Amino acid sequence: MENIYSIFNQLVQRGERERFLNQKASVFWLTGLSGSGKSTIAKGVERKLFEKGFMVQVLDGDNIRTGISNNLSFSIEDRQENIRRISEVAKLYTNSGIITLCSFISPTVSIRQIARKIIGDLDFHEVYINTPIDLCEERDVKGLYKKVRSGEIKGFTGIDSPYEEPKRAVLTIKTDSQKVEDSVEQLYNYIIEKSKLI
Amino acid sequence: MENIYSIFNQLVQRGERERFLNQKASVFWLTGLSGSGKSTIAKGVERKLFEKGFMVQVLDGDNIRTGISNNLSFSIEDRQENIRRISEVAKLYTNSGIITLCSFISPTVSIRQIARKIIGDLDFHEVYINTPIDLCEERDVKGLYKKVRSGEIKGFTGIDSPYEEPKRAVLTIKTDSQKVEDSVEQLYNYIIEKSKLI
Repeated sequence: MENIYSIFNQLVQRGERERFLNQKASVFWLTGLSGSGKSTIAKGVERKLFEKGFMVQVLDGDNIRTGISNNLSFSIEDRQENIRRISEVAKLYTNSGIITLCSFISPTVSIRQIARKIIGDLDFHEVYINTPIDLCEERDVKGLYKKVRSGEIKGFTGIDSPYEEPKRAVLTIKTDSQKVEDSVEQLYNYIIEKSKLI
Repeated sequence: MENIYSIFNQLVQRGERERFLNQKASVFWLTGLSGSGKSTIAKGVERKLFEKGFMVQVLDGDNIRTGISNNLSFSIEDRQENIRRISEVAKLYTNSGIITLCSFISPTVSIRQIARKIIGDLDFHEVYINTPIDLCEERDVKGLYKKVRSGEIKGFTGIDSPYEEPKRAVLTIKTDSQKVEDSVEQLYNYIIEKSKLI
């Protein structure tokens, strides 16, 4: 039982925050190739959830690699440390009661396992943004595939570095057979269902 | 001017989040000796703000050293990296529209300067929890001063490692001349004033 002392001597708890925000917090971890559409979908879903009154935050390369991970390289060791830090930030956000969308290639089973272990099985929803690599290369939003083909970039996921398909995804979004809006809708509906307070 | 494309292609912005939460986000950085009362005051203020409907999060040793900084030692280099990571997390929170209270000894001008630079002058409020070291040692909540005196701990701030008093504090709380409740009230009032949306 909580008593006055314990309440005043501890941080505001996740459950209290969830009740205040009227949402269940957890992490939706979007994995997929570069150019698969992860961040586009994450941003679309964030916007949609926000407009419905949810507190939600996307973590992606733009706000992580320029900040908490700005002293990390792209070596295997540093990629793992990057995922570890992202996961710890996502965990903090979850404890703050916030729905968190993580958008990172996270190419291997073992690297996603790091995230799952830190965040915790119950709060970790693995979402596979499944886009054929040909289509990713055709889109080439950031011009990275072109640089890979010209030899400017080495060790690129899906080309000369492996992408291991998720075996534990709770949701797979196939972006080649539907419009972006539909992919956003698909993830949005899943999150809404999982974010209801019971 | 924002157009539909730019709105849908960017994350939900801090200003939108602040309007949604009806608060201005920024960071209140509590510095002071071990045992000065930083975390007690931070927790009390968090509770009070939360009960008034503010979204607020305390970052302290308990949720940082066990998480994002759990691979750091207490060497000078690692202490700096610890403060850098905390500051980057606080910055993410600020961009999420959340009022953030950081409770860390952060003993030197230069280490607090790291935090100020990352978080940005406009969002950084340095708060000095000013408690005479004799009183900190008398309280000795964590039993650390005892360990210092028995020689079990070396390089302890205020004993055999310097604490540099803040020169840029916007608020100083003298815990030896008032009750905890009054210290909480003092910081709470300051934050309320700074967190009003204009």
